[in-house]
Amino acid sequence: MKITAFTVDGVPMIKEGDDLAEILAGLVKLEDDDIVVFAHTIVSKAEGRRYFLGDIVPTPRAEELARLNNEDPRFIQHVLNNSTKILMRHPLLVETVWGNVCINAGTDRSNTESGYILSLPEDPDRSARRLRDRLFELTGKRVAVIITDTNGRSFRVGQIGVAVGCAGIAALRDRRGDKDLFGHELKITIQAIADEAAACANMLMGEADEGTPIAIIRGYQYLKDDRGIKPSFRTDEEDIVKKALLEMVEREERAQKAIAHGERPSGVARP
Amino acid sequence: MKITAFTVDGVPMIKEGDDLAEILAGLVKLEDDDIVVFAHTIVSKAEGRRYFLGDIVPTPRAEELARLNNEDPRFIQHVLNNSTKILMRHPLLVETVWGNVCINAGTDRSNTESGYILSLPEDPDRSARRLRDRLFELTGKRVAVIITDTNGRSFRVGQIGVAVGCAGIAALRDRRGDKDLFGHELKITIQAIADEAAACANMLMGEADEGTPIAIIRGYQYLKDDRGIKPSFRTDEEDIVKKALLEMVEREERAQKAIAHGERPSGVARP
Repeated sequence: MKITAFTVDGVPMIKEGDDLAEILAGLVKLEDDDIVVFAHTIVSKAEGRRYFLGDIVPTPRAEELARLNNEDPRFIQHVLNNSTKILMRHPLLVETVWGNVCINAGTDRSNTESGYILSLPEDPDRSARRLRDRLFELTGKRVAVIITDTNGRSFRVGQIGVAVGCAGIAALRDRRGDKDLFGHELKITIQAIADEAAACANMLMGEADEGTPIAIIRGYQYLKDDRGIKPSFRTDEEDIVKKALLEMVEREERAQKAIAHGERPSGVARP
Repeated sequence: MKITAFTVDGVPMIKEGDDLAEILAGLVKLEDDDIVVFAHTIVSKAEGRRYFLGDIVPTPRAEELARLNNEDPRFIQHVLNNSTKILMRHPLLVETVWGNVCINAGTDRSNTESGYILSLPEDPDRSARRLRDRLFELTGKRVAVIITDTNGRSFRVGQIGVAVGCAGIAALRDRRGDKDLFGHELKITIQAIADEAAACANMLMGEADEGTPIAIIRGYQYLKDDRGIKPSFRTDEEDIVKKALLEMVEREERAQKAIAHGERPSGVARP
């Protein structure tokens, strides 16, 4: 199998209301089955997911977590507004309202004006479907769309591109039951194709001031479905790491409360 | 930036002692700065990292973990022999002797004959350096080498390709201090390039009986160094997930011991 992958040159600074599909269609000639990868930052901007810190009033909870993380309490309040669970207090690892697990709910201060912060799209799978449909409308080409963010990993330093939303591509390729070279059934293998494609694209897009927030992967044979990235999120029941982290947060908060009430639990240093 | 990536056709079944570099050099014309990605399975086989289960005598500890995982105790004993820490008992997530964290220490029963198991290379960075040097010797081309495995992830279903060893490419690209589009300093950004390249290659190589264990990424501009993948491993001190998991394993084992001694700790079901 052979693919080409390339970044799209000439993408302008994106602002709220911009039609990303139209911009892209004007810059590159798409082909059927291209995988079009958008960095979430430009999707978030086009969708108006930019917030002014001055509008946010932090709760005491946000102020406490802000002290722990040496962060602006209003920034942390915004993260909490977009989260359902805290899995780590420092750094602030959360489960977002739509199910992705990431630091600061993916909220970003980079690549936006001072005083503003940028959230992930409200529903990145929906954003991906809309981009895919609009690209078809404009070009007649049936492409897949992936929206990426960069996430850290357990056990390993550094960040890689991951898919936060997708459309027209099956995020997971279930190979259980397939045979290996010796005819044995593969034991566990669900290949996370959308995340591998996101990593591939992110390798090209980089992170900083290159300003190449769109990449295209061409020539890859992928399964098509429209379930988005959501099937990639582990359920609480099957997620042992999440369980261990939730228990740790609970212990930490219990210890902190005990300190606040004047007790001194053994083994826990006074902050 | 534009890259091409392709799998190498015609790689034969690999056995102990095979010269992978020579085989590859006979199949494809390499270019300077190619990133040559080998699935660890063929590197492991060439290096004789295949073990006969019948030769392994399990300890009681291996038998206990084997029951928990519905596995062959000899297989589990082999995993323990190659591990320094248990981070999860079921599935058996360990830190390997050379520092990578993965399920079953990367030991595999797929893609090998019945009754045999296959370990990761003893030192995958060294294996990568040797392949890189041998390829230079044979072809005069200066390439980078990455050796991959597929690993599961926290919070997400499915597996992706990761680098278990590399040579001639900086695994991490430290962008701290770089500026974003608005001239702000990027807050945290160490890009895990070798892992992104591994994911890209794995997307093409697949998992099952395709028999395409070598892929080449061409045209990518990368930083060069020879520190291998080891700088990617988080230290114990900075790894909060590892800490939470180690604590969980300790609690579980304490509870189990209590049960073995006839006590019945509250909230822990008798197995």
